[in-house]
Amino acid sequence: MCGPSDCTDAERDAAYEVGRLLAARGAVVLCGGYSGVMAAVAEGARSAGGMVVGVLSRADREGAAPGLSAAIATGMGEARNAVLVASADAVIVIGGSWGTLSELALAMRRGDVPVVQLGGWQVLDEHGEPLPGIRRAETPEEAVRLAGG
Amino acid sequence: MCGPSDCTDAERDAAYEVGRLLAARGAVVLCGGYSGVMAAVAEGARSAGGMVVGVLSRADREGAAPGLSAAIATGMGEARNAVLVASADAVIVIGGSWGTLSELALAMRRGDVPVVQLGGWQVLDEHGEPLPGIRRAETPEEAVRLAGG
Amino acid sequence: MCGPSDCTDAERDAAYEVGRLLAARGAVVLCGGYSGVMAAVAEGARSAGGMVVGVLSRADREGAAPGLSAAIATGMGEARNAVLVASADAVIVIGGSWGTLSELALAMRRGDVPVVQLGGWQVLDEHGEPLPGIRRAETPEEAVRLAGG
Amino acid sequence: MCGPSDCTDAERDAAYEVGRLLAARGAVVLCGGYSGVMAAVAEGARSAGGMVVGVLSRADREGAAPGLSAAIATGMGEARNAVLVASADAVIVIGGSWGTLSELALAMRRGDVPVVQLGGWQVLDEHGEPLPGIRRAETPEEAVRLAGG
Repeated sequence: MCGPSDCTDAERDAAYEVGRLLAARGAVVLCGGYSGVMAAVAEGARSAGGMVVGVLSRADREGAAPGLSAAIATGMGEARNAVLVASADAVIVIGGSWGTLSELALAMRRGDVPVVQLGGWQVLDEHGEPLPGIRRAETPEEAVRLAGG
Repeated sequence: MCGPSDCTDAERDAAYEVGRLLAARGAVVLCGGYSGVMAAVAEGARSAGGMVVGVLSRADREGAAPGLSAAIATGMGEARNAVLVASADAVIVIGGSWGTLSELALAMRRGDVPVVQLGGWQVLDEHGEPLPGIRRAETPEEAVRLAGG
Repeated sequence: MCGPSDCTDAERDAAYEVGRLLAARGAVVLCGGYSGVMAAVAEGARSAGGMVVGVLSRADREGAAPGLSAAIATGMGEARNAVLVASADAVIVIGGSWGTLSELALAMRRGDVPVVQLGGWQVLDEHGEPLPGIRRAETPEEAVRLAGG
Repeated sequence: MCGPSDCTDAERDAAYEVGRLLAARGAVVLCGGYSGVMAAVAEGARSAGGMVVGVLSRADREGAAPGLSAAIATGMGEARNAVLVASADAVIVIGGSWGTLSELALAMRRGDVPVVQLGGWQVLDEHGEPLPGIRRAETPEEAVRLAGG
């Protein structure tokens, strides 16, 4: 689950619900491990008794979300976005930021996992057309369903 | 300098010219080190006697462009995109691909270097507006000038 | 918990017991996630109902130990040794291999976590003296106790 | 070329000479890019007109040695040791530190490049015997010769 620290209340609520639904399906939730969308998905997953692993950019746990079951302090800076995306069976993106877009792009670059977007930014090709391949969801339920394979 | 393996002839020509102009200004050129836009920028820089360092995703040099002065075989897969972008004083993006977009996004995420785009994909925010901050160039000359600080 | 794929039965048994004892204390166990010592510590931790996160070198889960609660497929090759060590509150090393030694060295390089060695290789300084700072344990119980701070 | 920031004058002199000899043979020198042995090898290589690439642990160039032809600011912390070692055709180790030992171990873990040690620490196996495979040199000339394949 990817998304920005700096998010709207609606994005936070959607992330919480996505976390809850993923945990209810027995999925282990991976996220970036800090505030905003990342903390909300962790909280949602924990509310359903799920496991959440935070893949942190820092080499320590400073600023890590409280609801993580485990934290991987990669110490790699934004290169951790690639680690996070490489480790997932599906990628759900909520909201928009440059870091979040890098995760969306790296997930599409992989080419072998479902990539679902709930709101957020949009990418157009050189002709102004939306790029194909991203599954767009309107609700947390639809996002989790589309991520399910 | 960031750009895709799979590119048009026009993108290849632009990359060659960007490499040549950067080397003529005495800049060390960093690139992803493989084919397409990456090989063209290396060739252009070498044509002007410049130094080109390829930051490779693989742990060996298989498939590396011939014109590299040195290759850093990171063995990190797409996480090398973050390393490449973190090491640059300015980022020029030519053409579009998901890997290239991840580099554009990581460069904007840094927030402390000029990011110049010559053609390629476009990113819109949640309201359908172009994101501010990317410098758009029409020619290799303009790209190199805008990257100059 | 660090150790080689290729290990003796005694090392495997010790690793299983270390995993069991760590899980019994409520610790989340991090390991390299493959066979040998890594698989044994995972199995031991799972036998006590514990959580085990495998920090894999590959970008997929091929060859991952069966007992992992979650796998982080870093795709970074041996650079994942640094990620594993950076993420731990204490490092217990069982057995010897070059990969394992790199983890021991990176843990000592950190300087801010207990590093415990149960058997395995030994490092001498330029005068032939053992390097100070590594806590040597004779049994799994002692290893877990020494790791406890 | 791997070695510690904190080194003796003899190690610094040896590193300078190794750098000079490598550059005289036309080799591109890779090093960790900071002070001590790393700065000395860079200075030696530059004195012979050679190219030196510093693979830095930080995400910026703070503290980088002055003699580098190019710097790769990996921002990966000690994981850059793995990147440095993965990118080399041969690894020469001068002096001892935990970071340096991690590089020696990662180079031996690779198994496909010559690893040469000039002074520094020593590794014994579980029976107290020196591990085979490391080429020990007495002089900079011998180190460069042994690294040559």
